[in-house]
Amino acid sequence: MFFQTIHTDKNSHARTGIIHTAHGDIETPCFMPVGTQASVKTLDQQDLKNLDAQIILGNTYHLHLRPGEDLIAKLGGLHKFMNWDKPILTDSGGFQVFSLGLQKEKNKKGQPLVKIDDEGVTFKSHIDGSTHRFTPESAIEIQHKLGADIIMAFDECTPDKAKKEYVREAMERTHDWAEKSLKAHQKNKEKHKQYLFGIIQGADNRELREKSAQFICNLDFDGIAVGGESIGYNMIATKKILDWIYHYLPENKPRYAMGLGLNPADLFEVVERGIDMFDCVAPTRLARHGIIFVKNKKNKHRLNITNAKYIFDKNPIDKACSCSTCQYYSLAYLNHLFRAREISAMRLATIHNIHFFLNLMKEMREAIEKNKFLKFKKEWL
Amino acid sequence: MFFQTIHTDKNSHARTGIIHTAHGDIETPCFMPVGTQASVKTLDQQDLKNLDAQIILGNTYHLHLRPGEDLIAKLGGLHKFMNWDKPILTDSGGFQVFSLGLQKEKNKKGQPLVKIDDEGVTFKSHIDGSTHRFTPESAIEIQHKLGADIIMAFDECTPDKAKKEYVREAMERTHDWAEKSLKAHQKNKEKHKQYLFGIIQGADNRELREKSAQFICNLDFDGIAVGGESIGYNMIATKKILDWIYHYLPENKPRYAMGLGLNPADLFEVVERGIDMFDCVAPTRLARHGIIFVKNKKNKHRLNITNAKYIFDKNPIDKACSCSTCQYYSLAYLNHLFRAREISAMRLATIHNIHFFLNLMKEMREAIEKNKFLKFKKEWL
Repeated sequence: MFFQTIHTDKNSHARTGIIHTAHGDIETPCFMPVGTQASVKTLDQQDLKNLDAQIILGNTYHLHLRPGEDLIAKLGGLHKFMNWDKPILTDSGGFQVFSLGLQKEKNKKGQPLVKIDDEGVTFKSHIDGSTHRFTPESAIEIQHKLGADIIMAFDECTPDKAKKEYVREAMERTHDWAEKSLKAHQKNKEKHKQYLFGIIQGADNRELREKSAQFICNLDFDGIAVGGESIGYNMIATKKILDWIYHYLPENKPRYAMGLGLNPADLFEVVERGIDMFDCVAPTRLARHGIIFVKNKKNKHRLNITNAKYIFDKNPIDKACSCSTCQYYSLAYLNHLFRAREISAMRLATIHNIHFFLNLMKEMREAIEKNKFLKFKKEWL
Repeated sequence: MFFQTIHTDKNSHARTGIIHTAHGDIETPCFMPVGTQASVKTLDQQDLKNLDAQIILGNTYHLHLRPGEDLIAKLGGLHKFMNWDKPILTDSGGFQVFSLGLQKEKNKKGQPLVKIDDEGVTFKSHIDGSTHRFTPESAIEIQHKLGADIIMAFDECTPDKAKKEYVREAMERTHDWAEKSLKAHQKNKEKHKQYLFGIIQGADNRELREKSAQFICNLDFDGIAVGGESIGYNMIATKKILDWIYHYLPENKPRYAMGLGLNPADLFEVVERGIDMFDCVAPTRLARHGIIFVKNKKNKHRLNITNAKYIFDKNPIDKACSCSTCQYYSLAYLNHLFRAREISAMRLATIHNIHFFLNLMKEMREAIEKNKFLKFKKEWL
């Protein structure tokens, strides 16, 4: 069995479960740190083990461009390449391709950097400008070569501001690609102990989201993901979308909100709506800029470590925190390291932020199993 | 007893010893990793413990400018500030002040950035351009506040190309400052469990070097250092200088070659000449640029990890190396991390280089105690 639900909270859709993979189990709901280029920035895999990370992410777009899936396959797959023997999830590359296309729509000659057709997408590398093409089949093939435990169907991520007709067109393409991804995966399924997730799109349109949920949930995917520009970045839209699609989601498959985890508060909202997995670069990216997550009664969950008020502060970031940064270093020292632009500052802050997210998830799982999720949420927020 | 000699090699001046400090013992000869701004760049103090570093360096110039000795003193001294409970050595700030003065001799208005007089030196901060002044008395006072176990007399480091008359003048100033440093230290000695080293100068002039050695060795310092632009950067000059001064050095005091450790081969040369301690930023700085130290029969002790020949290399940097980087990661992975400009690459390379230097020193100590130092040197080089 790939996924096993353990307990559903009596007062909400929040639930605990276990995902079983060839590289070990993942207790859900879980937050997945992002290791874009086969590295969770500033950390090494021993750090991640010490942090008890259950699963990490890799980005197919980045790994395809550098060092390339063939190199990784030749070296025994992503787990061996980076020496991480616990579960890995790779995305399909779609999100990066489309968000790159949105950011810089045209090159100097006025040509679009990303060209979508019904079979796939052609795009230019952000590293050297070389031309690449992803199709549902190639995205699956790349992910087979990378060898992550959980892989994603190729999809088109449409901006929220797109017109409904375009969103519908993109959604239909995504559905077609979902079937093609599934077919490409099933052909080689026995060879690779990998589980494939489908992705629900439809931007912020109720009709399309419900249609997409119905379509994707009816296919033989191992798990169901919710994608889109808003997810995690616009929580009003995220909550609305999750509420629209909830009743289409099968009980027996894990559910993944893609790119969610900008704020600790957001985790509560999606767990409450029955989501089992999510990822976000925020805890690591913000850490590198000295933004630290803390539990705070006033619903302010971030502090800026470079703030002058910490210059003389002998205390750790959080006395109750068991991360190694809080165990060993004071706010004053971390403040100094950031002001002096010492590289080690970024790692120490990243360790705290990752621990903060992973620990919060652990506490949520405990609360769910005691049917106290909503109580815990209220206390926490 | 501060310093205890254990064994002198029968065939060279190489010797082993133990330095006793309030923060523990240091087995000599030893290499000291440099933690300029209260951080050995890319590492944290847990890394240094795992590496078995016996002692680290802090730079008075940098710590004075940021975060300032008063802040560090208020937070309990450098050991507590950075949470490192093993020995620390601070330099006097002289080297940085003078090397800054050499690098950028004048500001935009044509004014020198460093102004030396017989009482001390006035200089501008490289951070914000603010004016500061170091005197022998203030350099000692700052180092008392920082609280390192071993501190250095304030000296003037003259360039080798300086005219003999200037070198003599600077040397005499250094001697005067040595006496003043000693006096300032002795006044407060009981309060601070710190040991003060004097510094021999005299550039590459035999007469002046011998004169300086005689003068410094006759003062009541706890240890004797050899300073100068050449030390560690011009090994022909370094060997010559150490040979000139050897017979003036007292047996019962530790000897420190300042800034030495650019190449593993250099360590053998100075240990052979009876030196007990040295430091250099090279192993850490080079690591951040992907330059890795290895034992190699062809007398090439560096490899460039970004080299294309490592792209598919499943082996660690060195199969015989016991550092955590070699234990966990392949050349191919490290090559990828450097090419992808991942921050964690710098830390993993630094761990290997520091381990390489510390382990080489351990092997040298073992060889000395078996009277096999020269044999070990020959085999190694």
